Amino acid sequence: MSSNYRNFRNNVPWLILFLEAVFIVLFYFLSSDDGAPISSIYPAFQDVNQMVIFGLGFFLTFLKRYGFSSTGFNLLIIALGVQCFMLIEGLLVFFLLSENEDSLTRITKATMSMTSVVISTGAVLGKANPVQLILMTVVEIIVFRMSRWINTTFLEVPGDIGMMHVHLFGAYFGLAVSSRFSEPSPRSEKNASTPKSDLLSMLGTLFLWVFWPSFNSVLVVQEKSKAICNTYFALAVSAVTSFVLSVLTTKDGKFRMTHIHHAVLAGGVAVGYTAKSIEYPWIAMILGLLAGVITILGSYCIQRCFNPALKIHDTSGVHFIFGLPGVLGALAQVVLFLINNWPTLPSLGYLVTIGIGAFCLTISAALITGLITGFILNLKLFKTTPVSKYFEDQFYWEFPHLAVGF
Amino acid sequence: MSSNYRNFRNNVPWLILFLEAVFIVLFYFLSSDDGAPISSIYPAFQDVNQMVIFGLGFFLTFLKRYGFSSTGFNLLIIALGVQCFMLIEGLLVFFLLSENEDSLTRITKATMSMTSVVISTGAVLGKANPVQLILMTVVEIIVFRMSRWINTTFLEVPGDIGMMHVHLFGAYFGLAVSSRFSEPSPRSEKNASTPKSDLLSMLGTLFLWVFWPSFNSVLVVQEKSKAICNTYFALAVSAVTSFVLSVLTTKDGKFRMTHIHHAVLAGGVAVGYTAKSIEYPWIAMILGLLAGVITILGSYCIQRCFNPALKIHDTSGVHFIFGLPGVLGALAQVVLFLINNWPTLPSLGYLVTIGIGAFCLTISAALITGLITGFILNLKLFKTTPVSKYFEDQFYWEFPHLAVGF
Amino acid sequence: MSSNYRNFRNNVPWLILFLEAVFIVLFYFLSSDDGAPISSIYPAFQDVNQMVIFGLGFFLTFLKRYGFSSTGFNLLIIALGVQCFMLIEGLLVFFLLSENEDSLTRITKATMSMTSVVISTGAVLGKANPVQLILMTVVEIIVFRMSRWINTTFLEVPGDIGMMHVHLFGAYFGLAVSSRFSEPSPRSEKNASTPKSDLLSMLGTLFLWVFWPSFNSVLVVQEKSKAICNTYFALAVSAVTSFVLSVLTTKDGKFRMTHIHHAVLAGGVAVGYTAKSIEYPWIAMILGLLAGVITILGSYCIQRCFNPALKIHDTSGVHFIFGLPGVLGALAQVVLFLINNWPTLPSLGYLVTIGIGAFCLTISAALITGLITGFILNLKLFKTTPVSKYFEDQFYWEFPHLAVGF
Repeated sequence: MSSNYRNFRNNVPWLILFLEAVFIVLFYFLSSDDGAPISSIYPAFQDVNQMVIFGLGFFLTFLKRYGFSSTGFNLLIIALGVQCFMLIEGLLVFFLLSENEDSLTRITKATMSMTSVVISTGAVLGKANPVQLILMTVVEIIVFRMSRWINTTFLEVPGDIGMMHVHLFGAYFGLAVSSRFSEPSPRSEKNASTPKSDLLSMLGTLFLWVFWPSFNSVLVVQEKSKAICNTYFALAVSAVTSFVLSVLTTKDGKFRMTHIHHAVLAGGVAVGYTAKSIEYPWIAMILGLLAGVITILGSYCIQRCFNPALKIHDTSGVHFIFGLPGVLGALAQVVLFLINNWPTLPSLGYLVTIGIGAFCLTISAALITGLITGFILNLKLFKTTPVSKYFEDQFYWEFPHLAVGF
Repeated sequence: MSSNYRNFRNNVPWLILFLEAVFIVLFYFLSSDDGAPISSIYPAFQDVNQMVIFGLGFFLTFLKRYGFSSTGFNLLIIALGVQCFMLIEGLLVFFLLSENEDSLTRITKATMSMTSVVISTGAVLGKANPVQLILMTVVEIIVFRMSRWINTTFLEVPGDIGMMHVHLFGAYFGLAVSSRFSEPSPRSEKNASTPKSDLLSMLGTLFLWVFWPSFNSVLVVQEKSKAICNTYFALAVSAVTSFVLSVLTTKDGKFRMTHIHHAVLAGGVAVGYTAKSIEYPWIAMILGLLAGVITILGSYCIQRCFNPALKIHDTSGVHFIFGLPGVLGALAQVVLFLINNWPTLPSLGYLVTIGIGAFCLTISAALITGLITGFILNLKLFKTTPVSKYFEDQFYWEFPHLAVGF
Repeated sequence: MSSNYRNFRNNVPWLILFLEAVFIVLFYFLSSDDGAPISSIYPAFQDVNQMVIFGLGFFLTFLKRYGFSSTGFNLLIIALGVQCFMLIEGLLVFFLLSENEDSLTRITKATMSMTSVVISTGAVLGKANPVQLILMTVVEIIVFRMSRWINTTFLEVPGDIGMMHVHLFGAYFGLAVSSRFSEPSPRSEKNASTPKSDLLSMLGTLFLWVFWPSFNSVLVVQEKSKAICNTYFALAVSAVTSFVLSVLTTKDGKFRMTHIHHAVLAGGVAVGYTAKSIEYPWIAMILGLLAGVITILGSYCIQRCFNPALKIHDTSGVHFIFGLPGVLGALAQVVLFLINNWPTLPSLGYLVTIGIGAFCLTISAALITGLITGFILNLKLFKTTPVSKYFEDQFYWEFPHLAVGF
């Protein structure tokens, strides 16, 4: 019942306050001396921060009555999640499982890791209440850090590549969580966009498009310039592809704004794993092309066949925006590695197994923990939002405004 | 009468042109050789410039019928104010009261100083006409430069800390000016926001949130990295706090967008004075927490008790957005200084007096000159905007558009 | 007939795909070894990229029913145009007509060159269909590169100044193309803005204003700091001027938003040629003042006399936003050069002739190729958009939304 969450609502602040108090206390005990302070990473951090706070925040404003929650809750979970990540890092350093880094690098990595949470949020956008979002944030950021730790420690994935699993992890975690939520009524009028909200979402998308090369290059030490250029080309081609396929898949030969939102970023996601190692731009361009194709065809097939069959409702379509291009990118990495080192490396089979292993590990970790998280979040304890209040800002926010002109 | 300003309106351009001509002539005489040209400050300047032009411009668009004026007049007064500041610096160098700096550093400081004016503008938003705003800009930028000069010269406040008084000065100057304006009718329907304008304002707020670490670190020479991290943590905690307190102070347990706008930035303001000297992030976090609390409780108390008693109408709530967190930050600076140097420094009492002195000086200078400015601006000479035309773009701007869809 | 384009529409994706395939194949053959990879240009590239994708994209959203096309097609043509430019550079290197540069510098130059195309797009905004836009992009980017090549090779214009011809070229090319399109009905209700779309356009304009110093300084090697400061001052003064003249030229003494959009950037355009060589800020300020005056008076005269006489319809007013200030800047460059080197240089006359020659060459190349391009684009082959569908997103985009609240 709606009244359930309404009564429960008064406990929300205490939960958040409790979390925040725990964070501050733990920070007190875990504050270690910084490594050498490097502020040269600051511009790259700013770019990533803009992407996550501003780009993703507005990317998710496409629902017509959910703009406040999209941007507001995004800020809330990022502010909490980054602190949570800093503590996990502190614990890892404390138990000697990870080397000490300066705070700024750590905040940058925290912000990048939060991308996975924001992506997962996209899958349950409009369906999860703030309490569920916050719990999901804490669980996901911990699990993602663990999965990265296993990848880098046991599978010897380099740190910067390990971080690129963020899209894959976020998408499949979100899907798994989303599968435990009740489906919205298919005739729901609120699960739609207006031209205005689509334009605001375009604003966020363009921000993401512009800053994606920073995201793919921030942790790259050498070959930064190459990572930037390859990402740019992949993005450019997937932007073009999205326009092409949008016309081909709509009835009237018109463009569909949703397609553009979805597919322009696909190239950036797909090229993430290989941005620094691709030698020639045309390879990045082909990857961008494939990513664009896979996203739009994926959206076509998944929304018609896959999701209804599995009873998954994926509000923002994170499966084909971030999931499928991520899979493509991970496979492309293995294929390119094979081609480049075909006759030279003796232990090729071993290395390929490792590459595929990292990718499978990320997806399985995401799916399993996502399912568990989804199950826990839908316990009666958390007073799930009633289906009739899905996609509705007014359930969470005061609207003192006159309803005119909304 | 409305007709008064309308007749007067034709004099506006001549006033601005006159000012601009004076600026150009003075620039002709005051152009001195630059110090060594350093373009390494450029990225930081860009961040500050984006904050002031774009972030604060859209932060102030929350009024439903005042979007054009909020963003437009903001650009106008910044363009004028920066030039005015450059001339004051030129005069100070000429009279040997200040050392010569390269132009880019000077423009950066000018833009930071303009924050005070934009904050003051927030207090009289929708009530002051362009002529009043321009005069206020010129007076305030001069007085703020003088107050900073006294602080750095006689009270030995370091330059980067002196600049952080900008929020305090802006808030109290704005309040004092605002007290001399007629109060708007309490039932005024125009003094309100729409969901759309709230979302635009959120856009500006997120911009400010993302770039605030740049603002607090741009003038810091050493410990830049520390200043950035501490600011980030303070901002993160005050963002979380604003959500918590928003639920606790509204009737229904819902979030209120205005609270979020107000309080997410409080941490950044409060930590400004101590960002580079705080050793452990948990101190910055507690400061952010307190700043968030003080802002939302302040908004609750001030709007109900303080403002009506003093007959102050503070449109954007600059008193609790920038004023109270500024006071908190200035006090925190003294307290932290005391704690860190408790037994070691012999002249502790003297230094504490100086610290409190600088802070009191800034507030008193702001209040006194603000009152005088407010008094002058409301002379009949300046044809104040009639109360019935408050918060109304159409009084200043042509609206050729059909009124539909506004 | 409307049906013509509708049938034709199905060929659009194949055209784009064909182009993209050609690009990828050519990239395969033309990929040369990079020069030394320099990633220090990256922040400047980001600024330019933001300006072009985000700033210009939203600058053009002022039409009430053309927001999707303004931002969407902008992204499409930039993604295609940058790739096209990279290939031209590759060919020039291959034929030894140009030296090899690292990819990032090349992408930066490509993005800057695309400004000319986006400006031309502004002149035919709402009138050209995507096919026409894409062909225009390919032709214009090639011709502009050729005109720059002639300027730098035969007229010995320095590379960074040669790039500044981008505004001039874009404006006059666009005007020439536009003269071949049918004029929209003067009573067309769709060729207008709403307050909301004006505010979105202001968002784009402020972005351009903030990042313009980066645009003017990115290719400057020495004196970067001076170029930044001079651009800032010119922009500040032209912002002030635009407010002044807006009041003076409207009936009621009110501001007109369109004037502000047009004139705030004029100073940046005009000072482009001389930003690095102007010694004193007051010269840049006067240039900014004149640019603002010329833009607003130009808009007054051109829209009333010039355009109707020549039957040109310039949707965004690129003639006075970018064209006239560009002419002013080019002339100012010659005049300042004359003043600075009056008695000293023996071959002064020759150098002045060269300076004026470069400027005339750019304009003539733009006008002639623009006319030819306009003629070709309006062949029946390309199924021009019918006049009744001008300025209409729905002709190109699906609108699944309920029409309410548009």
